[in-house]
This record gives sequence, structure tokens and C-alpha cells, in this order.
Amino acid sequence: MEQAGESLLSKIARGDGHGENSPYFEGWKAYEHDPFHPVKNPNGVIQMGLAENQLSCDLVQQWITSNPEASICTAEGVHEFKDIANFQDYHGLPLFRQGVAKLMGRTRGNRVRFDPDRIVMSGGATGAHEVTAFCLADPGEAFLVPTPYYPGFDRDLRWRTGVQLLPVICESTNNFKLTKKALESALEKAKQDNITVKGLLITNPSNPLGTIMDRETLKMVVKFINHHHIHLVSDEIYAATVFTHPGFTSIAEIIEEEDTKMECDRNLIHIVYSLSKDMGFPGFRVGIIYSYNDNVVNCARKMSSFGLVSTQTQHLIAAMLSDDEFVEHFLAESARRLAKRYGIFCRGLAKVGIKCLQSNAGLFLWMDLRPLLKKQTFEEEMALWRVIIHKVKINVSPGSSFHCCEPGWFRNKDVAVASKKPCSPRNLMLSFSSMRIDDFLMSPHSPIPQSPLVKATT
Amino acid sequence: MEQAGESLLSKIARGDGHGENSPYFEGWKAYEHDPFHPVKNPNGVIQMGLAENQLSCDLVQQWITSNPEASICTAEGVHEFKDIANFQDYHGLPLFRQGVAKLMGRTRGNRVRFDPDRIVMSGGATGAHEVTAFCLADPGEAFLVPTPYYPGFDRDLRWRTGVQLLPVICESTNNFKLTKKALESALEKAKQDNITVKGLLITNPSNPLGTIMDRETLKMVVKFINHHHIHLVSDEIYAATVFTHPGFTSIAEIIEEEDTKMECDRNLIHIVYSLSKDMGFPGFRVGIIYSYNDNVVNCARKMSSFGLVSTQTQHLIAAMLSDDEFVEHFLAESARRLAKRYGIFCRGLAKVGIKCLQSNAGLFLWMDLRPLLKKQTFEEEMALWRVIIHKVKINVSPGSSFHCCEPGWFRNKDVAVASKKPCSPRNLMLSFSSMRIDDFLMSPHSPIPQSPLVKATT
Repeated sequence: MEQAGESLLSKIARGDGHGENSPYFEGWKAYEHDPFHPVKNPNGVIQMGLAENQLSCDLVQQWITSNPEASICTAEGVHEFKDIANFQDYHGLPLFRQGVAKLMGRTRGNRVRFDPDRIVMSGGATGAHEVTAFCLADPGEAFLVPTPYYPGFDRDLRWRTGVQLLPVICESTNNFKLTKKALESALEKAKQDNITVKGLLITNPSNPLGTIMDRETLKMVVKFINHHHIHLVSDEIYAATVFTHPGFTSIAEIIEEEDTKMECDRNLIHIVYSLSKDMGFPGFRVGIIYSYNDNVVNCARKMSSFGLVSTQTQHLIAAMLSDDEFVEHFLAESARRLAKRYGIFCRGLAKVGIKCLQSNAGLFLWMDLRPLLKKQTFEEEMALWRVIIHKVKINVSPGSSFHCCEPGWFRNKDVAVASKKPCSPRNLMLSFSSMRIDDFLMSPHSPIPQSPLVKATT
Repeated sequence: MEQAGESLLSKIARGDGHGENSPYFEGWKAYEHDPFHPVKNPNGVIQMGLAENQLSCDLVQQWITSNPEASICTAEGVHEFKDIANFQDYHGLPLFRQGVAKLMGRTRGNRVRFDPDRIVMSGGATGAHEVTAFCLADPGEAFLVPTPYYPGFDRDLRWRTGVQLLPVICESTNNFKLTKKALESALEKAKQDNITVKGLLITNPSNPLGTIMDRETLKMVVKFINHHHIHLVSDEIYAATVFTHPGFTSIAEIIEEEDTKMECDRNLIHIVYSLSKDMGFPGFRVGIIYSYNDNVVNCARKMSSFGLVSTQTQHLIAAMLSDDEFVEHFLAESARRLAKRYGIFCRGLAKVGIKCLQSNAGLFLWMDLRPLLKKQTFEEEMALWRVIIHKVKINVSPGSSFHCCEPGWFRNKDVAVASKKPCSPRNLMLSFSSMRIDDFLMSPHSPIPQSPLVKATT
């Protein structure tokens, strides 16, 4: 029956384009099967693979308690229940769009204004990326993506659209900065392979690097995509996690600047945003597509029917984001707490000899574990990863799952759970300093199968 | 710039597969541009094209007021805010899945049990249909769909998947009942056209007919799809709107029955459900895929990442649906109110000589306006529709937009807004009885362009 159950399905359903075979998701599963619990399962796996931001949730809870009328499920707000539960317009609640536009402006220092009529909602950034890919490219066409990049992109942009992602190689020698040469080289390779490139996808701030793109790089990027007449999608879902100087620069600012304004075709510029990281609401599934292209706004809005934000959530977010005082305080306090935690974590790792890429954003550290590799290969990286997940019992994510071109780099969640006892920097350091890699690397019984992703990369 | 903005987009974005050119959606737009308001715009268009169910919303509001701990946005429930806002597992909250499974059983008279582990969520029934199509068929492959059917299917199942929908002709002579002959004939035609049919999509209760499928028809359907080894998707989103005997029979019951059980491959059976119609929460975007095929459950769950239900909403729904007493009372009272309103509306239409198809479910009436057509053509149907929307100022939906094979039928929302003064049966009747069709039909200046859908059908 099982065979019969599969044979009649689509090619998409039978394939593995969902990307869950990547060690990024395999690590999640290892955690799920053996989750750490201080009492019930003290030897379980600690989840450091998920970029959550719970650091300032107490501020939101305080606001909610003080603003009962903001919810349709309180005595003070229930009179709006009927209208809100029945509202199903894909334009979204006007106050919701206004609130999000205002937040986007504020996280970009109010140096640029966002038009509420260009705010298109979607099912998280996951849905936003897929909708954007569906709007911009046909099956077989491609986007360039600087590496290392978020493993979920392989699912979000490719799986159901048939679109390809082509890596743009960034290297540790210049701190993984994106260069024009790397872009041109990736485009040239695509031409040789007869692949039509429709766009460039950048992530700013970067996941997994935790770094921001400087103005010069952004201007180079805008020039590059205009010169080759391809789209630019800027994923800015970590905009408000920038915790030290220099501050975040959005692509929205760059295209407003005098020297860029004239030579940039705005029809090519699209921003993906979300409240999952900046506000810490991943469960609410608030994804945003902000496009400067009217046709994309119209088409994406129609596609948003497949992943609209619950009006219960839209209504709450609308009220919360219209409270200027709260939003300002939340963003400032969140950045302060992120900075503090980052400092503690970095210093802790440094004490046991682990270096990280210098960064000032995001919810993670890009750890340089190259000194722990016997040989600089992806096989050794995977072997080390198995030690970390099965002996040290921490789910960190290997660089290969981010398509990093150099073995030995690992993404480690920093701030989000660092406040929880078991995952404190001290515990992590102890684990790393006491681990005996050799014992494990020599074992012929590796518990986790080699990932096809790694096989393909090495 | 506008042209440049379009030329670089995908074929999907440049095409009109979104289906919004159908008179079904055109009517919505006519309403949006000139919405009725008793004081501000008494000559505006009255929306009768949207199947909303607000009839028992007061019961929900009462429950919410009595159960403040059910929400994460009350003083009583805010302590759960952090955990709920951060929960992003695509399996969904266990209590949410249990609650939905229980509701599905209850709306089917508890004659059959649903397994919470087969509950996959999606962005409304809209998302559920698309995910199902993505799982079951490749681009170019097709589903058979009995006519008349919900116009949104043309968007939901086809637009981004490349799947085709092939009509199965149902006729007024036997009250639009689905026959084996019609199914065989549609399948035969597909073969001649070299189209691979992957499944049959039924809507039970039917939108737009408001009728339910009897056991014999359902058994015939199960036999048919097993004989031809194709999938069966049963859209049962109006299950709880059945307001008189005979009650609703789900496909879930049929495949449990002795004579069907043995000969049915359950891997072929899938149900689409939603809380938009039965509970009246379209804004909350709770769509459900319930498949008996493990591979489809697994694949659809991965795809649900593109349209998860907000955890704020999952949490509320979980609490509400776990309250057996409330759910039982709500369903009984809702059916009672639907029955009452249906009776009033039908009798009112009968008084001015308008007949409707006899039905016992749904939120609409299938009106027989053939006597008002000069000739039995789809051109005349559209002409009449223009009179209704621009002179009578009511947005009803023409049968052609439901792919009905006979001109002259119109879907009219009954219960949902009938409680509002301007849309009372009496007002509607007065409008119909006073309208002067001829004046308008002779006008060469039709304000609305001919729909391509109608052109294709006629």
C-alpha cells in the first residue's frame, strides 16, 4: 500500500526538494528525538540551531496586559470580534499595513518612508520568498545567492516554483564580503551553463554571518543588477537585530540616494520582511513583501490568498505597532539586550580558544572551528558536527548546510536561549573544552547518514 | 516604466490564471467601488456574492467573554504568550489538531473518528486545495470537477501548479446530481485530448448548489475513482451548514462502510476542511487537509510551511473546540438559525415568482432566473447580471462563473446578511419585481466588459 500511496503522487511530492535532508534540518530532528530537559533528560540534545528571539518578550507581555482593547478576545475588545473574524480581504486591515510600514521605517532609522499600499502580507518570510520567486521567475530560471546563505532558501524559493539558486562565492579572507568579481563570475558561469538569471537575492543583515552590508557594497549591488537588468530581492528580516555601530542600511535608503536614484530602475527592487526575528513572533506568521514594482505588488497580493495573516493577529499587531512609544522602547531595549548577550557569549568562546566572525546583528555566531578539523574537508566538518551533536549534545549547524565554500565554520545560536541555564556560554565552553573528538571520529558507526547536500558540495 | 516592470516577470505573473476576470470576482469589485451604506450610499451595490456565516457569531463572543484564559492576550492568558508566539512547528499545537479532529467528527454526527495526526493545516481552504494539487498532480495533469463549481477552484488548484480542471457536466433535469455517465464521459474526453487525469474533486455540500451528496452517489464515486485508480478530493467545508434532513454524509463514513471498505484504496482519499464557513471565521485562515495517504500527510505538512495558521489563532481555536458543551450548542443553534433564514428567504422569492433549487445546506440559494432570459444563452445571462448589479444594485453571481452548463442560474447569498436591513428578502423581492430589464438590455453601453470566461463557455 505504501508504494501505491507514493506512485500516484506528483514529482514534487516524490522528490526531496523540500531540503529536509540537509544537516541543518537533520540537527533539528536529532534535537526533537532527544530533547534536553534539566530534570527529565539532562543528557539530551540542546537546541542551538534555531534562530529565535525571546529576549524581549517580557516587554510585549507587559504591553498586552496594559492594552486589553487591542485584542478581540478580551471583554474590552470582543465587540470587534465579528468584524475581524469575518474580514478576509487580501489587502489586509489598513491599520495593520500602516503599522508594519511604520515599523519598517523605524527599524531603518526613519531615514526612509514605506508606503502602506505596497505592503503585501504572506505566510512568514517563507511564504514571502516563495511568492516573490513565483512572481519573478519561470521554472528553470535562476537567482544568484551569495554564500553562506540560509538553508531554508533551497526550499522556499525552489521547491514548488522550479526556480534554481546559484551560489555566489564569498570567502573568509575578506570576512565573506560580497564582491563584484564574485557576482560577475557567478553570472558568467550561469551563462556558460545556459541558465537564465532573473535576479540576485541578498540577506542583509546576513543569516548565518550576523554581519551587515556596507553602503559601498549595496551601491555596487544596485549598479550590478541594473547593468544586467535583473531583479534584486533584499531579505531584511533581521533589520532590528543590529545591536552596535555601524547601524543597518536598507536597500530602500540606497535607491533614494542622489547618485543611485537616477540610474536605478525601481521596478527591479523588492524587500522581504517579517516580524519573526525583529519582534520575536515566528508563530504569528507575519511575512511581508515590499515591492517598488506595481505589477509585483498586484500579483503578489493575489498570491497572498494562499498564506494570509490571521485577522486576529493583524488586529493585535496593528494596535501594537501604532503605539510609537512602545515600539521605540522595545527596539532600543531589544538591541541593548542583544548586544550584552553577544558580548558575554563571544568572550566565553574566546576563553576556550574559539574565534567567531566579528558581527553586529542577528541571533547567532559564525564560529570558526577550522582548528578542530584534522583536514580541511567537508567530510571532516560533518564528522565534527556528529561529535558536537552526539557527544557534546548541542545542535549547531555546519557551514556546509549554508553552502559555505570553506569547511570548518558553524552557526551557533547565541542570544536567544543563552538566558536559559543549560545553554549558558559557560556550559557550552565546558562541553567544548572537555570533548574528545578523536574517540568519536574513529568510530565506524556514525549514527547519522551522510547528507546528500554535503556529498554534492565536496 | 510600467512595461519594463512587467516584461521581466514570470509567465504566471504576466498571465491571468488568477481568475479575477471572472464575473464572480468582477461583482465583488463592483461592490467594492460602490458599496451600499444605509445613510452614506443608499444607492450602492449590496454584497450578495460572498458566502459569509455571521449568523451565530454572538455565541462565540459570549464564549470568549466567559473564557478569558483561552487567549494569550488577556491578563488570564498572557503568561502563555511567549511560548505560543515562539511556537513554529509545522505539526501545529497538539491541542489545536485534537480540537479540529473532534470538530470534524462531531459535524459528521460522531459516526466516524478523525486522527489528529492526519490533520495538516494550511492557509484556509484556498491553501489546502493548492497544497493538495501540488502533492497529487504534475503541471498539465488534470482533476475532474462536477459543474457548477466554486469559481475560486480555477485559481486555487490551477494558477501556480499548472494543473488543469476538466468539467463534469451536471444538469438541472436531475437537480444537478452527479452521475456515473457524466464522470465516464468526462474521463473519455480527457483521454481523447491526451490529458492525464489524476483525480476527482467533489464539493459536498455543494457550493453553489447548497445540496448534499447522497450515499449512493458517494459510493458510486468511490467505486469510480478506485476503478480508474485516481485520487478523490472531497471538499467538505460546508459540512456543518446542513440545516435539515437528510443529514450530511462525509466521504470518511463511506469508506468505513462494509461494502466499500474492502474495495477502496485509502491512499486515494483526501478531505479538505476549513473553519471559515462552519464556524464563521474566514479571517482566521484555518484550512485543513485530512489525507488517508501517509505520503500526502508528510508532504503536505512540509508544504504547510508556506501557509501555517497563526499560533495565536491555533491557541484560541484549541481552547474553543475542546469545550464540548459549547461546540454542541453552537452547531445545533447555528443549524436552527440557518434553517429559519433559508425558509424566510425561499418563501420571499417564491412570492415574486422566483424559484430556487431545493437545498438543505450552504449559505446561498441557487436561483432559477431562466424565465427572465429572452433567449437561453450565456450572453443573455450576462446581460441580466449587468442589470442586477447596476440597476438592482445587488451583487449576485452568474452561473457561468461557476461553469454551469445551462444559462439562467444565479447564486444568491441567503442567510449571511439577510439579518441586515438593506438585504432583507423583502427588499430583494421589491428590487426584482420592480426592475425593468428591457430598458437596460437594449443599451449599447454595457458598463462591464464581457468576461473571457463567458466567452469561452458560450
